Amino acid sequence: METLTDNILAKTIRIRPKESHKGTYGRVCLVGGNDHFGGAILMATEASVYSGAGLNTTLTDPSNFVSLHSRLPEAMVADFTNRDELTDLVSAANTVVVGPGLGTDETSLKVLQAVFNTIAPGQTLIVDGSAITLISKHELKLPQAKLVFTPHQMEWQRLSGIQIADQTDEANETVRKQLGGIVVVKSHQTRIYTPTGSFLNTAGTPAQATGGMGDTLAGMIGGFTAQFANQTNAVLAAVYAHSAIADELARHQYVVLPTQIIHELPRYMHEHQH
Amino acid sequence: METLTDNILAKTIRIRPKESHKGTYGRVCLVGGNDHFGGAILMATEASVYSGAGLNTTLTDPSNFVSLHSRLPEAMVADFTNRDELTDLVSAANTVVVGPGLGTDETSLKVLQAVFNTIAPGQTLIVDGSAITLISKHELKLPQAKLVFTPHQMEWQRLSGIQIADQTDEANETVRKQLGGIVVVKSHQTRIYTPTGSFLNTAGTPAQATGGMGDTLAGMIGGFTAQFANQTNAVLAAVYAHSAIADELARHQYVVLPTQIIHELPRYMHEHQH
Amino acid sequence: METLTDNILAKTIRIRPKESHKGTYGRVCLVGGNDHFGGAILMATEASVYSGAGLNTTLTDPSNFVSLHSRLPEAMVADFTNRDELTDLVSAANTVVVGPGLGTDETSLKVLQAVFNTIAPGQTLIVDGSAITLISKHELKLPQAKLVFTPHQMEWQRLSGIQIADQTDEANETVRKQLGGIVVVKSHQTRIYTPTGSFLNTAGTPAQATGGMGDTLAGMIGGFTAQFANQTNAVLAAVYAHSAIADELARHQYVVLPTQIIHELPRYMHEHQH
Amino acid sequence: METLTDNILAKTIRIRPKESHKGTYGRVCLVGGNDHFGGAILMATEASVYSGAGLNTTLTDPSNFVSLHSRLPEAMVADFTNRDELTDLVSAANTVVVGPGLGTDETSLKVLQAVFNTIAPGQTLIVDGSAITLISKHELKLPQAKLVFTPHQMEWQRLSGIQIADQTDEANETVRKQLGGIVVVKSHQTRIYTPTGSFLNTAGTPAQATGGMGDTLAGMIGGFTAQFANQTNAVLAAVYAHSAIADELARHQYVVLPTQIIHELPRYMHEHQH
Repeated sequence: METLTDNILAKTIRIRPKESHKGTYGRVCLVGGNDHFGGAILMATEASVYSGAGLNTTLTDPSNFVSLHSRLPEAMVADFTNRDELTDLVSAANTVVVGPGLGTDETSLKVLQAVFNTIAPGQTLIVDGSAITLISKHELKLPQAKLVFTPHQMEWQRLSGIQIADQTDEANETVRKQLGGIVVVKSHQTRIYTPTGSFLNTAGTPAQATGGMGDTLAGMIGGFTAQFANQTNAVLAAVYAHSAIADELARHQYVVLPTQIIHELPRYMHEHQH
Repeated sequence: METLTDNILAKTIRIRPKESHKGTYGRVCLVGGNDHFGGAILMATEASVYSGAGLNTTLTDPSNFVSLHSRLPEAMVADFTNRDELTDLVSAANTVVVGPGLGTDETSLKVLQAVFNTIAPGQTLIVDGSAITLISKHELKLPQAKLVFTPHQMEWQRLSGIQIADQTDEANETVRKQLGGIVVVKSHQTRIYTPTGSFLNTAGTPAQATGGMGDTLAGMIGGFTAQFANQTNAVLAAVYAHSAIADELARHQYVVLPTQIIHELPRYMHEHQH
Repeated sequence: METLTDNILAKTIRIRPKESHKGTYGRVCLVGGNDHFGGAILMATEASVYSGAGLNTTLTDPSNFVSLHSRLPEAMVADFTNRDELTDLVSAANTVVVGPGLGTDETSLKVLQAVFNTIAPGQTLIVDGSAITLISKHELKLPQAKLVFTPHQMEWQRLSGIQIADQTDEANETVRKQLGGIVVVKSHQTRIYTPTGSFLNTAGTPAQATGGMGDTLAGMIGGFTAQFANQTNAVLAAVYAHSAIADELARHQYVVLPTQIIHELPRYMHEHQH
Repeated sequence: METLTDNILAKTIRIRPKESHKGTYGRVCLVGGNDHFGGAILMATEASVYSGAGLNTTLTDPSNFVSLHSRLPEAMVADFTNRDELTDLVSAANTVVVGPGLGTDETSLKVLQAVFNTIAPGQTLIVDGSAITLISKHELKLPQAKLVFTPHQMEWQRLSGIQIADQTDEANETVRKQLGGIVVVKSHQTRIYTPTGSFLNTAGTPAQATGGMGDTLAGMIGGFTAQFANQTNAVLAAVYAHSAIADELARHQYVVLPTQIIHELPRYMHEHQH
């Protein structure tokens, strides 16, 4: 298990080429946010936009449209229960983030299934939060895609069947191989299992222990995978940057809010591009 | 009567342990905000989030969902008239704050009674604003819980039956014993009556004399009691910090707005952790 | 005609007494904002809150509640077409501001008439924007109150019957006497006619020539008259401070937005209290 | 083809005359923003307001009113499907911006046609985004007005019939003459074709390659043409300033968001007025 350092940023965050346009930096669809957990998809979207994804569309409950635009006019919106629109938008995306604040009811399940039925092998799919719970609960078949799972330890227990106390690297890696893709097991020391090795994130601070951190990380992984070709490095760099920014802020703050991390992204990424 | 100093902060605001997660810092439910006084529950929630509570859910009139999320995607929302959801969320909380902007009509009363019927002895319940008025008006029986009352002097008159002119420490302490719990009688020099003694807050400034200060304090007490084990110290530290931050801001401001105090909390608490 | 200087601030903005509470600094009702011009009443309310009025309630079209709370949870809201609530709230106010974004249709007229029928001689009533147009158009009888009119030159022409070219100090003062109260004729050099003399405001900058400035001034006059006993000085100080803050900002800005002036009020008033 | 420098700013951004009022700086109508792309018209409006236009009204889908006012109370709003209001507001404007987030469905088409049927030869009409697509798709007849087209290369292909690979200056200029007015062909090096010559913008940064940049530029052109008499210079100055501000921000940011550029406008224009 390799410990992440800021080397992963230098390897990942490329200096942008002069001749480029917003399409160069990817299309991200963020799917989630029911009428109770709208804030989760707002934070995920804000994280994707501030990390530099070229075009961002949020598929959510319509009750979240106004709060999203009040904070972030840079994103587009669509109703996640409109199947035709979901199909069109998900198909056109480079990266899809599904789960933040999605909930676990009948509507949530239909939305998740629609995403799974639409996604194609060449696309990256970040599976977060409620989406992981739904997969476990309904034993959903996973789609063919570049999968990234971002469970916390309890969600990982549900998805992998491994009790938290038994979540050794070996056990985790075994299940990761069965699932395919990349698994980010979030805790105070997040571990990332990938086809090319396992990684430990020792950055991060207890000041981050507040609601919305996971949604923010999912959005950042969305933004990074949409922009940077090496998907494994993109995930690793997002995990590291998320914690490292929090460490910076925690030098002066007792608690670090997710939206405060988000707003540091453009500066932080500038300092670590290569 | 002991005068509060910043010693109470050092005794209360612990340096966060490295191995912790958002559950470590408590679940807070904030219940209030009808269709006229929605701002009150927004400020209470914002105060709880910025003071570092791990998870925050706002039970309010649905007309307040969008404005809450526009300001603060970190909080979750639910309709306070949905009895099942209220029961589930209140039951799962460590601390419940009830009253900011709740109003005093039939709906307000039903919401308050639902909270009283749900709360359990091990939970902390902050009773603020309209909730105090409703208790007095309808002579409601108080639930078994760790109670914290935060009346201003007129609300204390209603609740205790003691006229403002007669609110001596002795008289106040006598009623506090009957009520149980902690009583925070707010005025330009707030007095706090607790099972382990009475305290005087000499911090604070007339620049704070503006609507929303009480709602903000209630939210801070919510956030502090959810995080810090000693509930009496948590209340005292919140009262002191609320005024001390205002004193800092008033060095450069004629009026200090509640939301400005809130936004200083992460920095201020960092400087005073121990 | 006397030219205003910052002396008017020192004479008006008192150092707040230690023993005081939000009631000490007045209750302001702000009435206006239809479904097209909601921004106007938002700015007026924000100006009143940031100038330090103790309690602020906005009576407006319900479509403006969410945007108001998104910006400013410190204010309370009510539907301006609810006659009973309007009567209760206006009766309880020290100062009422009517007109910003009110519009000039049938509903606007009814709201204005309800305010006129409710206001009492001891209260201050700021008559701004659409309210002035409605008075002229419908030849409304003015109520008994401490009246402050804040027309721009064209509105003053409508209200006074004096063509812009003929708006001499003598002519203006003659009509002011008939109307009673204070008249603020807004232009790039605003003139204020009062029972104790006329005043010229030479502060101000063309960077202020943008929509919303008048609404902001009306809200500031609301906040100042609610706090400071001498109503004439309160109006003069608000007019001067509004322009003087803009002058400060215009040293570094090509255009100065109303909300930027508002956010400087707490600092500016602190520097000029006495 | 002449390369733009900051000379264009000095030639365009005039020091404001002392005796002026909001009418001096123009009335702008911004038309666009359906229920999916509301953020686009929010950014266009914000850009127009922050560039100093005197009065700004946004004609949009009513679902965007609240998010607009939450961000920007300085603008007025109207429903873009209300034909009478559209006619009145567009007629009264100096500059009309049509297209940002307008969409391309039946409603969008009707709104665009209503604008075309209302606009008069003396008015400036900025045709952006969806409006360009609609013209191409439905072969709409262009109205008599001071036209400014702001297509990106693909939209220009649709409008001009020239394939992207064949978009030489000569070919572009030929079609511009047929269309009349000014054409801004946006790419990483934007080219502007005008009756008095062609211009190349070498300012700008790949940090700008994110959604909403075009909407922001359209709003800035709206604000500049409303204020500055020479319409060609106004367009050139807006294009240059938009990129030059982004260049400044990109010294410290990996990605530059449209709303960040907007908020720099008052300072930047102050530094470059003459």
